[in-house]
Amino acid sequence: MAKKKKSSVKRKSTKSKAMVYYFGKTKTDGDGTMKELLGGKGANLAEMTSIGLPVPAGFTITTECCKKYYDEGENLPKGMEAQVEAAVKTLQKETGKKFGSVSNPLLMSVRSGAMVSMPGMMNTILNLGLNDDAVVGLANQSGNERFAYDSYRRLINMYGDVVLGVDHHYFEAEFDKVKQKQGVKLDTDVDTQGLIQLCDLYKKVVKKHTGEDFPQDPMKQLYLAIEAVFGSWMQHRAVRYRQINEIFGLAGTAVNVQSMVFGNMGDDCGTGVAFTRNPSTGTNKFYGEFLINAQGEDVVAGIRTPQPTEEMPKWNKKVHKELMDIKKTLELHYKDMQDIEFTIEKGTLFMLQTRTGKRTGAAAVKIACDMVKEKLIEEVEAIKRIPAGDLTQLLLPSFDPTAKKAAKALTVGLPASPGASFGKPAFTAEEAVERSHAGEQVILVRKETSPEDVDGMHTAAGILTSTGGMTSHAAVVARGWGKCCVAGAGEIHINEKTKKFTVNGKTFGIKDVISIDGSTGEVFAGEMKTIEPKLSGDFSKVMKWADKYRTLNIRTNADTPADAKRARDFGAEGIGLCRTEHMFFEGDRITAMREMILAETKKDREAALKKLLPYQRKDFVGIFTAMKGLPVTVRLLDPPLHEFLPHDAKSQKDLAGILGVKPAVVKQRVAQLHEMNPMLGHRGCRLSITYPEILVMQVTAIVEAAIACRAKKIKAIPEIMIPLVGTKKELSILRELAEKTIAEVKAAKKVRANLGITIGTMIEIPRAALTADEIAKDAEFFSFGTNDLTQLTFGYSRDDINGFLPDYLGQEILERDPFQSIDTNGVGQLVEAGVKNGRSTKKDLKCGICGEHGGDPASIFFCHKVGLNYVSCSPFRVPIARLAAAQAALS
Amino acid sequence: MAKKKKSSVKRKSTKSKAMVYYFGKTKTDGDGTMKELLGGKGANLAEMTSIGLPVPAGFTITTECCKKYYDEGENLPKGMEAQVEAAVKTLQKETGKKFGSVSNPLLMSVRSGAMVSMPGMMNTILNLGLNDDAVVGLANQSGNERFAYDSYRRLINMYGDVVLGVDHHYFEAEFDKVKQKQGVKLDTDVDTQGLIQLCDLYKKVVKKHTGEDFPQDPMKQLYLAIEAVFGSWMQHRAVRYRQINEIFGLAGTAVNVQSMVFGNMGDDCGTGVAFTRNPSTGTNKFYGEFLINAQGEDVVAGIRTPQPTEEMPKWNKKVHKELMDIKKTLELHYKDMQDIEFTIEKGTLFMLQTRTGKRTGAAAVKIACDMVKEKLIEEVEAIKRIPAGDLTQLLLPSFDPTAKKAAKALTVGLPASPGASFGKPAFTAEEAVERSHAGEQVILVRKETSPEDVDGMHTAAGILTSTGGMTSHAAVVARGWGKCCVAGAGEIHINEKTKKFTVNGKTFGIKDVISIDGSTGEVFAGEMKTIEPKLSGDFSKVMKWADKYRTLNIRTNADTPADAKRARDFGAEGIGLCRTEHMFFEGDRITAMREMILAETKKDREAALKKLLPYQRKDFVGIFTAMKGLPVTVRLLDPPLHEFLPHDAKSQKDLAGILGVKPAVVKQRVAQLHEMNPMLGHRGCRLSITYPEILVMQVTAIVEAAIACRAKKIKAIPEIMIPLVGTKKELSILRELAEKTIAEVKAAKKVRANLGITIGTMIEIPRAALTADEIAKDAEFFSFGTNDLTQLTFGYSRDDINGFLPDYLGQEILERDPFQSIDTNGVGQLVEAGVKNGRSTKKDLKCGICGEHGGDPASIFFCHKVGLNYVSCSPFRVPIARLAAAQAALS
Repeated sequence: MAKKKKSSVKRKSTKSKAMVYYFGKTKTDGDGTMKELLGGKGANLAEMTSIGLPVPAGFTITTECCKKYYDEGENLPKGMEAQVEAAVKTLQKETGKKFGSVSNPLLMSVRSGAMVSMPGMMNTILNLGLNDDAVVGLANQSGNERFAYDSYRRLINMYGDVVLGVDHHYFEAEFDKVKQKQGVKLDTDVDTQGLIQLCDLYKKVVKKHTGEDFPQDPMKQLYLAIEAVFGSWMQHRAVRYRQINEIFGLAGTAVNVQSMVFGNMGDDCGTGVAFTRNPSTGTNKFYGEFLINAQGEDVVAGIRTPQPTEEMPKWNKKVHKELMDIKKTLELHYKDMQDIEFTIEKGTLFMLQTRTGKRTGAAAVKIACDMVKEKLIEEVEAIKRIPAGDLTQLLLPSFDPTAKKAAKALTVGLPASPGASFGKPAFTAEEAVERSHAGEQVILVRKETSPEDVDGMHTAAGILTSTGGMTSHAAVVARGWGKCCVAGAGEIHINEKTKKFTVNGKTFGIKDVISIDGSTGEVFAGEMKTIEPKLSGDFSKVMKWADKYRTLNIRTNADTPADAKRARDFGAEGIGLCRTEHMFFEGDRITAMREMILAETKKDREAALKKLLPYQRKDFVGIFTAMKGLPVTVRLLDPPLHEFLPHDAKSQKDLAGILGVKPAVVKQRVAQLHEMNPMLGHRGCRLSITYPEILVMQVTAIVEAAIACRAKKIKAIPEIMIPLVGTKKELSILRELAEKTIAEVKAAKKVRANLGITIGTMIEIPRAALTADEIAKDAEFFSFGTNDLTQLTFGYSRDDINGFLPDYLGQEILERDPFQSIDTNGVGQLVEAGVKNGRSTKKDLKCGICGEHGGDPASIFFCHKVGLNYVSCSPFRVPIARLAAAQAALS
Repeated sequence: MAKKKKSSVKRKSTKSKAMVYYFGKTKTDGDGTMKELLGGKGANLAEMTSIGLPVPAGFTITTECCKKYYDEGENLPKGMEAQVEAAVKTLQKETGKKFGSVSNPLLMSVRSGAMVSMPGMMNTILNLGLNDDAVVGLANQSGNERFAYDSYRRLINMYGDVVLGVDHHYFEAEFDKVKQKQGVKLDTDVDTQGLIQLCDLYKKVVKKHTGEDFPQDPMKQLYLAIEAVFGSWMQHRAVRYRQINEIFGLAGTAVNVQSMVFGNMGDDCGTGVAFTRNPSTGTNKFYGEFLINAQGEDVVAGIRTPQPTEEMPKWNKKVHKELMDIKKTLELHYKDMQDIEFTIEKGTLFMLQTRTGKRTGAAAVKIACDMVKEKLIEEVEAIKRIPAGDLTQLLLPSFDPTAKKAAKALTVGLPASPGASFGKPAFTAEEAVERSHAGEQVILVRKETSPEDVDGMHTAAGILTSTGGMTSHAAVVARGWGKCCVAGAGEIHINEKTKKFTVNGKTFGIKDVISIDGSTGEVFAGEMKTIEPKLSGDFSKVMKWADKYRTLNIRTNADTPADAKRARDFGAEGIGLCRTEHMFFEGDRITAMREMILAETKKDREAALKKLLPYQRKDFVGIFTAMKGLPVTVRLLDPPLHEFLPHDAKSQKDLAGILGVKPAVVKQRVAQLHEMNPMLGHRGCRLSITYPEILVMQVTAIVEAAIACRAKKIKAIPEIMIPLVGTKKELSILRELAEKTIAEVKAAKKVRANLGITIGTMIEIPRAALTADEIAKDAEFFSFGTNDLTQLTFGYSRDDINGFLPDYLGQEILERDPFQSIDTNGVGQLVEAGVKNGRSTKKDLKCGICGEHGGDPASIFFCHKVGLNYVSCSPFRVPIARLAAAQAALS
């Protein structure tokens, strides 16, 4: 949204706009709503000033200036300097201080501040304004010569590094020399003379490496510093940070120029940071830390250990009380938990920053509920405020934060399925099953997984793959189960034969425990302590609120009664995708399945299918029972048959033995079914066109199961979904066959009642979306299979995307992995067209989504916008979807 | 078009429409323009009657009735019978004959006749109206009892077989018994008594197998016969014929009921068929055959050998003169070569059919040119009339028709690349090269081909594959070269190890010559004589006319100077697609290419690319020279790198030796580059994003080649095409890099002049078409890569489609292979959107097509309609494209 708005801002309009916004006692130009223009920090400094909080005066240069800076080939925009000068004049007047003054010099901090916080990613310069004169002034004014020169040397160092590009270690080297000379070890032990000398040495370093003198003109210092802040917007780490955090469409960073206050002028000074409530648990208790006689940077740097703010009264009761009052003021004003920075200069408290505090999912839920109770906010506001995606944290185990802090990750893969787990590596699915049954806790470690591996994946405590993306087989299946999975950890090299893997020079075998964090993609050596989740009453309350406002229905993707039940407990209102292929892998089934695939004649195929029928029927009875009274969309067999066949010689031989044919026959048939691009091959409804008997068996199982449930007074509502339709005719033929089968089963079972079975299709082929008006004639519902639709619309194979995805994200070709969050520009056009075209034929056509996107908040917003009836997602994402759907409805 | 028109015909309107159209002296309801309603035969019978030709009177039941027949559950439409009865009455009055009369019985033929001719595919009944009374009448009237009973037994046999479904062999058995009894061998030797007896025996056969008597009521005979003709419309062979010949959207067949005339009443009778000009060469000479004392069916059945019509004057001068007059009348009236059927009954000539005659491509060209000379038609009409696709026949060798007639095909594959060839099987590309160099003529026989095989494919006389479709690698490459190829001949089982293939029980080794016909897909044992093509002056004339009217430019897909030259000779106006990947397979190049792919660092990669640069430059100099003054669109490297690597252990070892690494390294890297779905993998512009140095090398080669040409006063017009773009950003990044490279090469070569190199992209990813407005910002041209666009829009892999395509065509899910002729409904929507979106950004954006569809006439019509600037096709299709483009412009 922000992006669109931005791009419509024309250059002309920015020309006439103010580029500099002052805040202070004299006047305050901005306010807290102007984050887009002034950045989060700038807007809040203005806002805090307005509501009377003690904020050092200053001004903010707009984000638009940053944009113009780049638009104009990295030159400060015309007219800006005049506005800056005027603001500096006002500031000098208000503070009574003067740039470069030997009596009362004006010193300033220059800080970045975009609309969205990017902590530590951009440049800051402190003590700006110091020069050979002003340093004397500062010494006079503070009565502390050592402090003055320490401030000066810090400026030269920071300025040299950040603005002039002189490497930090050149300054370090000089400092070391001085310390050596003075025979001391700590910076703080160097005396005033040493620091005076150091300032000279530092100036020489600048001269040597830049060819120019350290600028003595404070205005020049200021302009160069502003440019440096602008420049930091596009430096690599900042760009990367925005990508990782999916921050897009910002104009640039603002620059906050503020008169300095010092927390390091003596023991009546200090600095601190705090959250107005506990950001980890959400408890309504001020949660801060402070350091006496220190600058803000010292708290962050972690050199000295700060004290909790509870200890502050012992040091300065008045300041503590002021801080507690400010907490109240801020929360009353902002109606949210705040993350603040403050400084105490000679016993006077100054606020340097306030912003909405980041919090864990659990804290978000608790704070929102508490604030409703405290009547600070309304229910609707509470719903809007909880980041839906963060709810996952509440539902899955995680690593003990303390343990994790101490450990170093071996490598980082993709956070494919959240949760945390540990175990010993198993290198094949069979091994995982065997060792699990023998009581071991194993992590299945594979290059990639295939449907053959599901048994092993299910018994393993977690899954780690070296290839494959966020929607690879491993990732999708694991998310469905809520099982922890790290995928595509490309630095891991697996040797299945020797049962070992190596990662960055270290080797792990079947005896070496590893821990994997599916929420971050981290892999650790050894066993790490995990914490089990507990669901609070607040969580239920939030869910109840969400259900009140959302209009989208939430279904789940589930293939087993257990998954179905879990999803129902999480609030799923039906199954949007019940895949039938996983059902064929267990025990005897796979043999019958393979028999069916290898059959040479329709008769043999039907004989094999007859063996599968009772299994399928039983599966469906289980699922319909778990979901009684709610709809269950059953997708008919989808993957290419090749996936069900054994690929190694031994398994082929075993199968040949069972089937009573020569191994060569099995081998040949497997080779024959091999496809160059199985994703685009003989699968989905194409199978039923070629082998209608497969559809007949599956539909028979569905109908028989529905009838069996009916007999037990269990209300089954099956919806038969025909996958991979690209033409109307495919659906017409298969729909007719399915209807005929339903009628035949009913006749055979002597059932006359309407079973209410509907027939629909997945829209996952671009052509289906484009011709949805035709297809809708034979469909009672559409379910958008946005996984395959994304593959085809982009021409990306989910299994192979890792070959270039990192480059695509790195170069901002893609804003995010399109398999995680729907590409509204491209794929979205097809979804929208599909809905529109389909409903042009059938006004009330039920439309849903069953791709992985169904559990992604941004995608859910899109689904709401284009008028879908429901989204379907993996069980553990159901709460996320409920909340995101409410947020979409309220937005 | 016909389809759309059809579907808008509402039931209501047909109700009030006449269902029966009479033709005769009394009145003639229809005319030659009403083919859609009356079928081709019916419309022309009416037309011939109107212009005074001797046509036996009768009536036509409309195709709409056939449609209604099916719409109403295979029942004759209401109201039809009354109209039929009225027509029969008129007919009786006009002829003075009467149904079932013992003195002068009315006999009729009942024939099918759809809008498009489907020879032999539907049912015909002759002599209808005969019964136990009428046979006496016929004997009386003809004065030939034997003839009368022979006619009657023919009716019972034909009617029993076609209408009542009694198997023909039951009748045959009875005939054999009679012949045995009479001690004769030939049907014609059975005497009158024998035939009378036979009629009784035949009636018993009918009774026995249907439980009912042979119907004696002529009206009942008629209605059942009409139903049988309607029924034949949907019988398997008719449906299949329509599919194969791509005949779609017809309402059904008409039924032509016509009073019988007999060519078999005696030696003053006869029957014949003729073309008004030679259908094979086009020579303006009446080309017919006739049989004395025979029925039309006898000519077709080929039991007796007919005489050429030149011999007719010896038999009946008057009739021959009449026939020659009719030839003139018909051609003057229809302004086209006609295919006629006639019968002479007792010295009187009757016309039974006329229709536009089918002809070879050569004949089509000659007839069109001759008729312009004869002032029968205008130039524009001549252009419209030549089936563009048939021009291929003029350009490629073909088998001697006589030789082919005598031979039986071993199997039939897909007619992947036209032409005819023979040779001894070679089972690997290397073998093909070696044996060709040793002087053997070989046919490369492979399961499928890959880019590794191009050398072998090029030296082979033809290519035969057992898998792969019309756009498989083998097919595409072969068509590009005009080399004969039969693809996907699934009955062929190849054993590469033993160097043998078997087909339907026969085995062929390296010594056994085979012949393949790429225009039909046939494979023959032994050497078959081929005929080389000669291009006539008429051909050039047609091409000149076409160029006058067409607005589309025609380019070619060519990768070598030889192909470029050939295409230019055929009239290509530039290269629309110059693939660069084929260039990397020869000799040293492939080694450098593999070195590049296996390089671990950018530096190593650049070193390998440096070796490839001179080759590429030389390639481009050659192509630019061949195409001087015309644009050459060079597509940057497109296929996944895996395709360039060796896949067998020996080649991997060899490569490892050359590169000085361990074979395991090569093996591992090959495995690492393997993709599940290479079509959707790391290819196209994705390669240049990851390895920009590849693009830099290719662009450098292009620019250096352009500069080298310039130095030789050769005007090179390169257009750089970036493939597989799905997002604007990809194109922006690569365009910038290409522009930078161009500037750098120019600077290095001290060239200041504008080289006029443009940069554009292929639109082959659905998302690119959907977001073409964005992409157009960075593109100077779009080239629609409809091969890949079809793959992605349908989700079909060209390599794997044969697994289900036969079923899809068989069940009419697809009207035709969408890789041969563009799917205007689905893929077409994206092309249209791409053009529209692109031009919404850049009004004059140059748009072309370079997929296989560029040489398909129907697709060219579509390209014209959506406003493309050019189509690009393989060299041998350039003339087709020129003509089809003119036809599109004139349509």
